[in-house]
Amino acid sequence: MREDARDAAARVNEQRLWQRHAEMAAIGAIPGNGVNRPALSPEDIQARKLLLSWATARNFTISADGIGNLFVRRPGTDANADPVLTGSHMDSQPRGGRFDGIYGVLAGFEALEAMDEAGVITRRPVEVVAWTNEEGGRFSPCTMGSMVFSGARSLADVLDVTDNEGTRLRDALAQTLAATPQAAQRAFKSPAAAYIEAHIEQGPLLENARNTIGVVTGIQGLRWFNIEVFGKTDHAGTTPLALRKDAVRDAIAIINALTDLTRDPHDITRFTVGRMLVTPNSPNSVASHVLFSVDIRHPDPQRIRELGEAVEPAARKAATVCDVKVIPTLHDDPCVFNPEVAGVIEAAAQTLRLPNMRLPSGASHDAMYMARLCPTAMIFVPCEHGISHNEAENATPADLAAGARVLTASLIELANR
Amino acid sequence: MREDARDAAARVNEQRLWQRHAEMAAIGAIPGNGVNRPALSPEDIQARKLLLSWATARNFTISADGIGNLFVRRPGTDANADPVLTGSHMDSQPRGGRFDGIYGVLAGFEALEAMDEAGVITRRPVEVVAWTNEEGGRFSPCTMGSMVFSGARSLADVLDVTDNEGTRLRDALAQTLAATPQAAQRAFKSPAAAYIEAHIEQGPLLENARNTIGVVTGIQGLRWFNIEVFGKTDHAGTTPLALRKDAVRDAIAIINALTDLTRDPHDITRFTVGRMLVTPNSPNSVASHVLFSVDIRHPDPQRIRELGEAVEPAARKAATVCDVKVIPTLHDDPCVFNPEVAGVIEAAAQTLRLPNMRLPSGASHDAMYMARLCPTAMIFVPCEHGISHNEAENATPADLAAGARVLTASLIELANR
Repeated sequence: MREDARDAAARVNEQRLWQRHAEMAAIGAIPGNGVNRPALSPEDIQARKLLLSWATARNFTISADGIGNLFVRRPGTDANADPVLTGSHMDSQPRGGRFDGIYGVLAGFEALEAMDEAGVITRRPVEVVAWTNEEGGRFSPCTMGSMVFSGARSLADVLDVTDNEGTRLRDALAQTLAATPQAAQRAFKSPAAAYIEAHIEQGPLLENARNTIGVVTGIQGLRWFNIEVFGKTDHAGTTPLALRKDAVRDAIAIINALTDLTRDPHDITRFTVGRMLVTPNSPNSVASHVLFSVDIRHPDPQRIRELGEAVEPAARKAATVCDVKVIPTLHDDPCVFNPEVAGVIEAAAQTLRLPNMRLPSGASHDAMYMARLCPTAMIFVPCEHGISHNEAENATPADLAAGARVLTASLIELANR
Repeated sequence: MREDARDAAARVNEQRLWQRHAEMAAIGAIPGNGVNRPALSPEDIQARKLLLSWATARNFTISADGIGNLFVRRPGTDANADPVLTGSHMDSQPRGGRFDGIYGVLAGFEALEAMDEAGVITRRPVEVVAWTNEEGGRFSPCTMGSMVFSGARSLADVLDVTDNEGTRLRDALAQTLAATPQAAQRAFKSPAAAYIEAHIEQGPLLENARNTIGVVTGIQGLRWFNIEVFGKTDHAGTTPLALRKDAVRDAIAIINALTDLTRDPHDITRFTVGRMLVTPNSPNSVASHVLFSVDIRHPDPQRIRELGEAVEPAARKAATVCDVKVIPTLHDDPCVFNPEVAGVIEAAAQTLRLPNMRLPSGASHDAMYMARLCPTAMIFVPCEHGISHNEAENATPADLAAGARVLTASLIELANR
């Protein structure tokens, strides 16, 4: 590791980083240590102003793009070099926690400050970005800011989305942008040399393995289906099993077949049946209809494609007497992060002697869209019992600081390439 | 077969029996060829009056007990001999059919008429009984008339039951009894030499086997359970399967185990999971709780006892990580009919060259309570596709007459023993 990277990592201030989480958690605080900070809300504006107040104190420059993504830049020696970006989001779930999203913004800002304090000079600028509306709790879809920035969707396409109160995104966005007039205008798809997003894991792998740093290798692919099983209702007492068209029985045969299909000794494949609706749902009536959901995820593009394609044939084969309808409802291809950026993160963790592991992300992140624009990877830190999207979400000051140290060292490495 | 039994069986009038079904079906007729004739309602009273008008025309004697069970007697030569009884009920489900219950009453009355017309003289009296409130659609519980007649429950116990409109059974009963003043008072538990109930099968076995007569060997035992599975909700994307407490997964493991437990190459055991409730019931959340119903039936007392006792241990063994609660909700012991009476029915069917089979009843009948008082069995005739408790309930005039012929011969045989 470069000496300046080691110095800057050592300057990461655990106490300051924790204190800033507390200040942000006060904006939109809800009972039980939770946070409700909807995208483009007054709370979001307050959080943006707080971030910019810290940036102004450091003389960092500020810009914002047309969807309200906010960029804080620490300059490099080559003003024409594409910047290295880091960041995440400041909006939260309606009953969210104090770390999901905001950690990536605060860890990025801590990295810039640590560099300043260590007197680090990089060739490329380093920027912290706060993406607009990652959660999608107020305006749909989620990961909207990075989606529009990356060009995956046009701004015009989302401006007329309304929230549950009928407020148009267009109006909430104009208010938000007006609240930070000091931000220069930033173009969509403005070039970046690399992107690293730090985030709490939202799963239990790091905690269970007693690792502090997760080197995130990608975001897994996802297939959703609704499977409908059409049977025939009959009297549970009088109808022999051989003469039934029992929709529950065939639904279970299908779920058993899908369990076999998705069985994975490495426990990487995720298979979940979370929703089941039975009709007429009476103890002494054979079911005439069952609808159940299938959620399958895998980080490998070929494996998730195979699994996705195998669902319908497996379901049809498993059904013994009922008619079956398989309806795909969601299809996200996996995102594989850049091995070089992941390697930089892993090397930083090892040099800093932080126990680490490679793992895929189970959930979606803005990094999914940034990966389309530039070499991208993520850093995970543990969260208590893997709980997230919940007031009970928790993380330790030491783990948050460790992640910020790895981030700082990695950004410096990339900003000099 | 006795010659007089053969003669009387031949006198069973298919056309008259079918016509009387049509007359009864007009009382409480609903769209789709269905019937709504609640117990102790004006329609029930009208049906009783119609039956008694036919009885009076034949000079049969009439009595009624305190719960409104109605008896029509054709005398024997020995006035002190206990009568042989046959019958069923005249009330229907709210959206019931034209045969369930009423067939047993009309077939019994047809038997009395056929005996009259054949000049048959029996030692014992033969009586047709119309049991009050077998369906339980208006007043709960079902099979109330035979339950009270047999002493399984006291009259006082049910008099204050109310229907959905708040009408007390006491008042509806008084009106019904007042409408048939010609009926002599009959004591509960008045002795009987034997009881045979004719009924549509309400299942598909006879139709599928192309048999006309079912010799019913008993009413199967029943065990109901609610099984609750307590898991923990988690993110479907981020939580490895090994770390989940997935209530759907364990519920299915339990259902698989119960399917194995109840597997029966003879297809006599009935096993139904008709009801499932999943919480939170969201596609990308691992289920924290599942409740499902278990309905197991078998005619053999020992087998149903074994099965009932095996449910909880099997469920506990099958659950891998979740907590399990097994709650028994219903427990009916099987009723085994009298082999001698069943033998008389079977012999009659064979002598009359009617294709027949032995089978247990999947549903409950008044015969269940009469079996406590005297030697009892039942005769089933086919119903179309096994459909019952439905306007679409159907049966053929020929099958109904065939059942009445077997009934007639059997009653004459028993009435001379």
